Amino acid sequence: MTISALQSERAKYQPKLPNSLQSSVKLVEGKNTQSVADQDEIKKLFPNTYGMPLITFEAGEKKQYPAVNVGVILSGGQAPGGHNVISGIFDGIKNINPESKLYGFLGGPGGLVDHSYVELTATVIDEFRNTGGFDIIGSGRTKLEETAQYDKGTEIMKELGIKALIIIGGDDSNTNACVLAEYYAAQNTGIQVIGCPKTIDGDLKNDMIETSFGFDTATKVYSELIGNVERDATSAKKYWHFIKLMGRSASHIGLECALQTQPNITLISEEVELKKQTLGEIVDYMAGIVAKRAANGENFGVALIPEGLVEFVPEMKILISELNDLLAEGSETEQKFKSFTSKTEGRAFVAGILSAESAKVYTSLPSGIADQLTLDRDPHGNVQVSLIETEKLLGEMVKSKLKEMKKVGEFKGKFGTQYHFFGYEGRCAAPSNFDADYCYSLGYNASFLIAEGKTGYMSSVRNLTAPAAEWIAGGVPVTMMMNMERRHGHMKPVIQKALVELDSAPFKFLAANREKWAIETSFVYPGPIQYWGPTEVCDQPTKTITLERAK
Amino acid sequence: MTISALQSERAKYQPKLPNSLQSSVKLVEGKNTQSVADQDEIKKLFPNTYGMPLITFEAGEKKQYPAVNVGVILSGGQAPGGHNVISGIFDGIKNINPESKLYGFLGGPGGLVDHSYVELTATVIDEFRNTGGFDIIGSGRTKLEETAQYDKGTEIMKELGIKALIIIGGDDSNTNACVLAEYYAAQNTGIQVIGCPKTIDGDLKNDMIETSFGFDTATKVYSELIGNVERDATSAKKYWHFIKLMGRSASHIGLECALQTQPNITLISEEVELKKQTLGEIVDYMAGIVAKRAANGENFGVALIPEGLVEFVPEMKILISELNDLLAEGSETEQKFKSFTSKTEGRAFVAGILSAESAKVYTSLPSGIADQLTLDRDPHGNVQVSLIETEKLLGEMVKSKLKEMKKVGEFKGKFGTQYHFFGYEGRCAAPSNFDADYCYSLGYNASFLIAEGKTGYMSSVRNLTAPAAEWIAGGVPVTMMMNMERRHGHMKPVIQKALVELDSAPFKFLAANREKWAIETSFVYPGPIQYWGPTEVCDQPTKTITLERAK
Repeated sequence: MTISALQSERAKYQPKLPNSLQSSVKLVEGKNTQSVADQDEIKKLFPNTYGMPLITFEAGEKKQYPAVNVGVILSGGQAPGGHNVISGIFDGIKNINPESKLYGFLGGPGGLVDHSYVELTATVIDEFRNTGGFDIIGSGRTKLEETAQYDKGTEIMKELGIKALIIIGGDDSNTNACVLAEYYAAQNTGIQVIGCPKTIDGDLKNDMIETSFGFDTATKVYSELIGNVERDATSAKKYWHFIKLMGRSASHIGLECALQTQPNITLISEEVELKKQTLGEIVDYMAGIVAKRAANGENFGVALIPEGLVEFVPEMKILISELNDLLAEGSETEQKFKSFTSKTEGRAFVAGILSAESAKVYTSLPSGIADQLTLDRDPHGNVQVSLIETEKLLGEMVKSKLKEMKKVGEFKGKFGTQYHFFGYEGRCAAPSNFDADYCYSLGYNASFLIAEGKTGYMSSVRNLTAPAAEWIAGGVPVTMMMNMERRHGHMKPVIQKALVELDSAPFKFLAANREKWAIETSFVYPGPIQYWGPTEVCDQPTKTITLERAK
Repeated sequence: MTISALQSERAKYQPKLPNSLQSSVKLVEGKNTQSVADQDEIKKLFPNTYGMPLITFEAGEKKQYPAVNVGVILSGGQAPGGHNVISGIFDGIKNINPESKLYGFLGGPGGLVDHSYVELTATVIDEFRNTGGFDIIGSGRTKLEETAQYDKGTEIMKELGIKALIIIGGDDSNTNACVLAEYYAAQNTGIQVIGCPKTIDGDLKNDMIETSFGFDTATKVYSELIGNVERDATSAKKYWHFIKLMGRSASHIGLECALQTQPNITLISEEVELKKQTLGEIVDYMAGIVAKRAANGENFGVALIPEGLVEFVPEMKILISELNDLLAEGSETEQKFKSFTSKTEGRAFVAGILSAESAKVYTSLPSGIADQLTLDRDPHGNVQVSLIETEKLLGEMVKSKLKEMKKVGEFKGKFGTQYHFFGYEGRCAAPSNFDADYCYSLGYNASFLIAEGKTGYMSSVRNLTAPAAEWIAGGVPVTMMMNMERRHGHMKPVIQKALVELDSAPFKFLAANREKWAIETSFVYPGPIQYWGPTEVCDQPTKTITLERAK
């Protein structure tokens, strides 16, 4: 196997651990907890795992633990550092007792149900230390939601003598981990379940989980690229670069990248929703900045656009929902729509059956985008929002707006565009020092939670803006982060998603600076992630967490 | 001004110089030279600058040179390291004589003609050391081809006391630099002209110019991203990623990135042209690999596609040329075409007026791509090849092919695609150590060529796979690299473009390995450019130059 020079050198990196986890721990229990909302319902649903105390680990006397067999699952989308969580678990359980064993379930939660697994030996682990990707055992999107699945899990874990399962995933996967913990406790299986907070989206965080892993590395990769594009923009002075960034439901990625690179325009989905901004208003805002910069002779710029934006624009949300109904698989209107061979006629037909409001929105869209809404639907006939080229939609609409403005003398300049989408470029990058250390610590810490017999907890490592030695490790009951939300028509207990809040320090920093950044060219060029070199360059956490914790 | 931690630390980097340039030089003249072809014509066109000897600098006794005012121009597309060439010139002419001055002409060659310039003082230079971009003085695509332009240049250079002009550019710009050198010599202006080899495309190289600057950094950035995407592909096991790479006329970028990352498919334009491959053959080749991998249960992969590919496919070249004629601005057929409001009817019309062969190709294209060929034309009515989404064209055609194969049982798998285009992400990256050193040396070396009174030379730094201390610095007469080629209907003396040669060591390495890489997943993950750390990671030249020089 060929490996790159960087892989070969990086394999030698020993991730840093908090002082408290260096050898043995003393478990300190905090107060009993309650869920962030809907306490009565959640308590009723989680009689065995509700209300448990917060746990902090302090450095303790050397303790004897029995050997423990542990299973691990990677759930959902890739995030940098997953392999380090697993190597942290491996080293952690071996530290607890060298006879301990680690099993990886293959291809995500489905591997548990299908009894597809592999033993993760030292040889395997060593190959994956400090690398990106989830390829060590693969990931998957099967949801563990049914008791039949849980029982299949019990079966294989009993067979392998697995005493604890660690699920590495986002908010949904950790919610399901907790449901599973509750079920296994209720059934007296003796199997513990521990969660680990993963997602590049940054929307799994709260007072006890300061950030999800992968967010640091992914936003650094995107910021490297945005900075490079900014430098190109200001060198060539020829294009507006419209950059779409991965992340459907929250705009933390866009916000963090904006703080790192100071682009001219940053759209935040949550702000659009809260202020009920229309597509027209967004386009006016963008065109206004293009025109102002043009007036200063600067016919170039960079705009950051969150992937999920259109779902936050009220009128688009309604349009998409109407289209989902009207073009539902097998409906009469869908059959009729399918009968058109000409796209133009197809669009005219759709415009005719939409509500007046939605028809207005629909016909205002560039035809290519209108077609993406109706032609590229999923097997259920739903609009595939992730396929909508929001960056091109906005680019074309801004162009039309500028044409109008030119006619009345409000725009005197040129407007050329380049489009980018950054997503897959960052999800599997090799983890930054921060993510390498954080992930390893999360995994190592999880092994102590297991040794101490805990279940229904999420591995928690806090105080992340301090040096790793001073990080605070412990566990947070998953129920503490839950509230009740409507999902697919039913009220369900779920971990509250952390959206960008307009009164948060990171957003306020953007809001206070964006007018200046819009007009003056204030680009910052973060450059590529560095693993060796000055600590200011190599070991900085995100701007988001730095600002959040400085408050 | 906010600058990133990396910018701030990287500003302190002192680029390495060859030992021979450390303080003073001894000029060693080699044999007289001749052009690579068409010697008689070129000699006639360049009576003053033809046949000059190769120059090598050796370390020499401290010499007194008079102060010299120098002008510098950045020409054409951005490439990492341009700022280091300029800081090398600055330090070089100050070393020669502290009273020397450097002027930058703004916005490319047009700045010389329009008398738009700035003095580059130590303060300005220090701000730009080791940074990416061309924003220190900007660049531009004005071509210096007319004597009126040359004379405007003389005017401002006389005014500023400029004795020598350095043009940093690609093959065309260096050709023009030589024409200018010849003109200034013939006119006895006393102004010297020196060229510097720049282009990320890697197509300006020969025995004396081992690589153009920027190629190293740009291909490393693209390889970082390709590696990340590869790791995502093999983790998610869900998508084929079709990645288009910048570079219109040569496939060096794609080849270098392939050697670094070992993707499943690498298309090389030069091979397509030489073997007269049709679009259908290319699609069959790609679909064949997809099917073979699917048979092994691997419904994922990565394909690299050079930006200029379609212009190298013989049938597409003909189609594009027919479309340029038929839809030429103001022609009758163009008027008729414009009258269609329905794209479907427009395409039917176009298919009707093309030759039978081209109509067949045109109607085989996905409709979105066919529209790109006819709707997005430049002001002269020409097809804009750079706007053709070749990666989507191939993706959609491979999909159609696989559908056919599925029907007859030749493909049993899934085929989902993600598309990427990497170009602007790499052109303005901060230079790698290699490019930082190489560019600085090129600039520093140019100042000695000037001090020694040379004109019509390109700055040359060779032996680049050795440590910088052992690099060989000197000058190559530009006429030596020239031949006569037809350009816009006239025979012109131009620097011969270096295309990918099928008997070159880098291509042969690809050819020997690509079948294995296609089927086995042999991805390599180079990771981001590192500036500090182990020399194996930080200071490696490209695979291309390493293989070329190992022969």
